[in-house]
Amino acid sequence: MARIAYINGRYVPQSRAQVAVEDRGYLFSDGAYDAIPVHNGHLSFADRHLDRLDRSLSELRIARPMSRAALLQVAHELIRRNGVRNGGLYIQVTRGVAPRDHKFPKGVKPSLLMMARKWKAPAPDLLSRGATVVTMPDQRWARRDIKSISLIANVLAKQAAAEQGAFEAWLIDDGGMVTEGSSTSAWIVTATGELVTRPDGTEILPGITRSVVAEVARDLGLTLQLRPFSREEAYAAREAFLTSTSNFVLAITRIDGKPVGNGKPGPIVARLREAYLSVARA
Amino acid sequence: MARIAYINGRYVPQSRAQVAVEDRGYLFSDGAYDAIPVHNGHLSFADRHLDRLDRSLSELRIARPMSRAALLQVAHELIRRNGVRNGGLYIQVTRGVAPRDHKFPKGVKPSLLMMARKWKAPAPDLLSRGATVVTMPDQRWARRDIKSISLIANVLAKQAAAEQGAFEAWLIDDGGMVTEGSSTSAWIVTATGELVTRPDGTEILPGITRSVVAEVARDLGLTLQLRPFSREEAYAAREAFLTSTSNFVLAITRIDGKPVGNGKPGPIVARLREAYLSVARA
Repeated sequence: MARIAYINGRYVPQSRAQVAVEDRGYLFSDGAYDAIPVHNGHLSFADRHLDRLDRSLSELRIARPMSRAALLQVAHELIRRNGVRNGGLYIQVTRGVAPRDHKFPKGVKPSLLMMARKWKAPAPDLLSRGATVVTMPDQRWARRDIKSISLIANVLAKQAAAEQGAFEAWLIDDGGMVTEGSSTSAWIVTATGELVTRPDGTEILPGITRSVVAEVARDLGLTLQLRPFSREEAYAAREAFLTSTSNFVLAITRIDGKPVGNGKPGPIVARLREAYLSVARA
Repeated sequence: MARIAYINGRYVPQSRAQVAVEDRGYLFSDGAYDAIPVHNGHLSFADRHLDRLDRSLSELRIARPMSRAALLQVAHELIRRNGVRNGGLYIQVTRGVAPRDHKFPKGVKPSLLMMARKWKAPAPDLLSRGATVVTMPDQRWARRDIKSISLIANVLAKQAAAEQGAFEAWLIDDGGMVTEGSSTSAWIVTATGELVTRPDGTEILPGITRSVVAEVARDLGLTLQLRPFSREEAYAAREAFLTSTSNFVLAITRIDGKPVGNGKPGPIVARLREAYLSVARA
């Protein structure tokens, strides 16, 4: 079945969906996006994701392309047309089309792209053995709290990780602390069993899966410390994991080639993954 | 006359030129660009600009879309079709079209966009009174030496400057030193008459106009110091100016509201502008 995308008011075969070359998303990466998980045919945490998209657009001062109700209507139609039971919905909004000039153009309408896709099941190895990460300097722009399409630094980091055989890159700030992954949030479990993840701020994206996991962790009686952690602390962690819209909660069993704990996915990550999924599917 | 753009092998009316929504330029700002000035119908410094484009693409590991000879043929055709006597040629290359995934896709062809435009004459005030700049933190990613289309931080800086009534933003690094403008190179003339501009490095774009101006400055017997300068040094400068492909050499007469020197365009800037233009038009 050919995938169907929504672009500026029309449902079109995704391979034929196009935008103007003078779309500021193409010339300036002047736009924001979000992705909403779909479980059993239903959007999960849609309001949180759309709140975050609204915030990204507000920070960039890009107008909302349509009401939330209308956006959700398109979302449901795309999920239906693409037959997505378990997957994700992608939404991208750019400032619009205008002759190339850095300054915000006047009188433009934002461009809206939406795509839906089924998720492939993760490789069985990934769940049973855990993922590997490598660390590298965080080269992104200063406003990582905005989910912008200015993603070249993320792309280069993900590619560099892949070429080292790793699933993800953990990005390191000038002070030697982990900010987050190139497209995922970063967590460790300390030797004394506390969860640690960096607090919200301009240095990281406010992860939605991360926020849900923080809540289920508290419900499970786990202690959560919102603070930056160093690469060395990560090396010494009992467990480590990442969270993201498409990976949910995923154990990390090797960092820069060093095994985390005993080198196998640990019990706390397993409990969090299960608890997260039961909320997401509810 | 409707403008004509070149997009992936075809000459099309620019307002109808389109790219796939899954072009990585649109989803990830995964691409680079350059702009070549056109004087009297001829490209100026084409080899330097195309060398820089090649370098940007090499750093991003994006394939060249065609040979330099073929690129120049398209360039000349676009200049002709658009009747450009004095203006600029814009070239953008992205990694290509692929289903969204951060990692480099395999087997894709790069996308190539080229546009030509006439330059409007600068507002007479701008030349007679000079431009104003305001300073603000440099929020761009770490590799400003790559002329990538990941320009959201540049866009926000230029817009913030415009809203303060300024022509350009001068961006300040963590050490209080000027890196460059949001789309222009930054220079000062010290009280003792030396030219100062930041040396090439990852912190700034290696400006082509800047490199030509450095050469003509030496020919004029001026002393050039390649070193970072601070905001305070800029406030105390005798003259200040910016260089860029579309502005050539432009006096800056006010920085953060403070007059530079006597607040009028100075003699060294005037000599450099004239000397640059005579080389560019040669």
